Amino acid sequence: MTTQEILEAARGAKAALALADGASRAQALRSMAAQLCSPASMTAILAANAADMAAAKGHISEVMLDRLALTEERIRAMAKGIEEVAALPDPVGRVLKRVERPNGLVIEKTAVPMGVIAIIYESRPNVTSDAAALAIKSGNACILRCGKEAWRSANAIVQALRQGLRENGLPENAVCLIEDTTHASANALMTAVGYVDLLIPRGGAGLIRACVENAKVPCIQTGTGICHIFVDDTADQAKALDIIENAKASRPSVCNAEEVCLVHSAIAQEFLPKLAQRLGPDRVAAGKLPVELRLDTRAAAIIPGTPAGPADFDTEFLDYILAVKVVDSVDEAIAHIAQHSTGHSEAILTRTQTDADRFTAAVDSAAVYVNCSTRFTDGGEFGLGCEMGISTQKLHARGPMGLEELCSYKYVIHGDGQIR
Amino acid sequence: MTTQEILEAARGAKAALALADGASRAQALRSMAAQLCSPASMTAILAANAADMAAAKGHISEVMLDRLALTEERIRAMAKGIEEVAALPDPVGRVLKRVERPNGLVIEKTAVPMGVIAIIYESRPNVTSDAAALAIKSGNACILRCGKEAWRSANAIVQALRQGLRENGLPENAVCLIEDTTHASANALMTAVGYVDLLIPRGGAGLIRACVENAKVPCIQTGTGICHIFVDDTADQAKALDIIENAKASRPSVCNAEEVCLVHSAIAQEFLPKLAQRLGPDRVAAGKLPVELRLDTRAAAIIPGTPAGPADFDTEFLDYILAVKVVDSVDEAIAHIAQHSTGHSEAILTRTQTDADRFTAAVDSAAVYVNCSTRFTDGGEFGLGCEMGISTQKLHARGPMGLEELCSYKYVIHGDGQIR
Repeated sequence: MTTQEILEAARGAKAALALADGASRAQALRSMAAQLCSPASMTAILAANAADMAAAKGHISEVMLDRLALTEERIRAMAKGIEEVAALPDPVGRVLKRVERPNGLVIEKTAVPMGVIAIIYESRPNVTSDAAALAIKSGNACILRCGKEAWRSANAIVQALRQGLRENGLPENAVCLIEDTTHASANALMTAVGYVDLLIPRGGAGLIRACVENAKVPCIQTGTGICHIFVDDTADQAKALDIIENAKASRPSVCNAEEVCLVHSAIAQEFLPKLAQRLGPDRVAAGKLPVELRLDTRAAAIIPGTPAGPADFDTEFLDYILAVKVVDSVDEAIAHIAQHSTGHSEAILTRTQTDADRFTAAVDSAAVYVNCSTRFTDGGEFGLGCEMGISTQKLHARGPMGLEELCSYKYVIHGDGQIR
Repeated sequence: MTTQEILEAARGAKAALALADGASRAQALRSMAAQLCSPASMTAILAANAADMAAAKGHISEVMLDRLALTEERIRAMAKGIEEVAALPDPVGRVLKRVERPNGLVIEKTAVPMGVIAIIYESRPNVTSDAAALAIKSGNACILRCGKEAWRSANAIVQALRQGLRENGLPENAVCLIEDTTHASANALMTAVGYVDLLIPRGGAGLIRACVENAKVPCIQTGTGICHIFVDDTADQAKALDIIENAKASRPSVCNAEEVCLVHSAIAQEFLPKLAQRLGPDRVAAGKLPVELRLDTRAAAIIPGTPAGPADFDTEFLDYILAVKVVDSVDEAIAHIAQHSTGHSEAILTRTQTDADRFTAAVDSAAVYVNCSTRFTDGGEFGLGCEMGISTQKLHARGPMGLEELCSYKYVIHGDGQIR
């Protein structure tokens, strides 16, 4: 189908899906999971994936190739993910607020699906099943647009998922995969006013920027994280070392990893050498990759490391690299963060209550932490049970987006002849 | 100041405002109200308004001139409006959700201001004080951009409001008025990424469309309402006549007025003549303006009226005009609404519970009514205490926007050394 035909098909599916009750949608999800693991689907998905892998080899990195690769085990894990989503509480139809007015009107603010959600993503096949499951669970039709490296795999997965929908009498077009993997289809989704009720770009900074610049449909920015940790003068330094190593080095490629460490000048002489030891020689001794430090002039006067260049405090390294700066106060830390943060996640490590309160009040990011790692910004860790991405914008959804964030609401008002 | 200087000034003000507590913001609002009524402000505002009126005379309609005109009484009413907003509960800092995770993390989802809200509006001077009051109450800085006819009045009002802010140690730039009233400044606001956290256009369909097309900052569409009332076969017809007359003719110029009436074919022969009588001769006999009916062919076979043209079911008349169509079922009514509605407000009049349930489930509008007038879609009528506009979009806010809808949220997480 052309992209326009898919837009129309998804819009056509949304009404039936919005009217299906939660039990039907959960049952459809269980069928989708079962279909994914059927012998026929397994064979088809693995064959499609093998073709994707063969075509991609030599064109993308080994890390990307590994992300792309599917095995029976990985497909079973995708199915298990769908079943977990099926078991979550139904987000649709919740009465968010109910008031009875003096004139007798009963006003209920009720959660409803957004309608059609479009997701633009890259090459991880499991995003295909995750995103489709979250959309169906929240009563939304979805249009998936994946990177060209993963298209054959995504298509085979989507065929299995659509079979699961059909078996339950739900429209198969509630899960659609865009066939065109050029920029044209991404642009078509960004401008599909009247067809796409919510666009979620999941990818690098370039994709997010393109959406901000070009999207005419409602859009949620996700992902880019230049996360800061500020070590205050009263911080528990032993815990601070554990937290910083975890935030920086446990998984440097993710958006909630720390990129910048701000250290209070009153403890810089004492703390920075410990930090350099922990992230350098200690890690090497433990057989781990060391973290390269990019130091501002004050930090460089205390410990060895790379002098920070002008861009180092505005870069999402996604690597074993940490920018380090010495500041004189919590207010200087707050001001630095206001200027350089992407609004994702920031932390203060302190035993001074007033500093913790000032930091949490003043820092304008999706997640603001006191005395723990920034790595907790995650739908699962927040207890949402799932995640469609991490919003760095302030409209509608902020931070990890779960099922509730994939819903809108409407007011349903019952009367008995009232006029105004 | 240039528009760019104003953008920077407002951004500079937002941090101080976000840190001010609710009592300080309420106190500032009371000072703003008092300043508005001070003898010096009264004189300045009335003089500015006289200049606006003199310049506008002959260029805008009498109705518009009346909307523009200020008197001491109207200024006192604006001040009273600010005091009422001051007395509302503080929307900032509410803990929307609190979870304690198994690892001991305490996660609080907390309401916070959006930051800087820009409002583009037309010529009603009271919008200046209303919008500023709602912004300050919700901890937001605001940038106001009014139509050129009202600029002198708005400027005099803003000077008084800023004096009230200064008296309370809050930054006067928390309320800014754009000096340039050309399209250039509206476009600058639409594209002020990094400065404007939320743009609210309040105006005609052209302005809303321009924002959807051009806005790169988060934007909420407001206002356009092609509202439908469906008279089902089991409707209480006496109540239906009252409701339709109220929804159509009590104030035709507003967005929650009815524009289209759908009548079930099973009662059309009986009901349409009563409707024609009520909206025509009965109103004339009572000294009121009659409503012109634009009839589809089936309705035209039953009662006299103007034959409906192709555009009549897609027009926000904002006038004493009602389009009328005969349909065969609640599903046909739902389908017509899905195709022609702007997603504002729709009603079903029925005594059949299953039809009411189907209509409220299937109609995808901000407010869906059973057995009452669409005119209730209003912040005050919904018990919100105030209103910044009526959203017809599904992202973030839908229907009447009160103080809560002018807030975002952030997650504040307290730990004791937790790592992932």
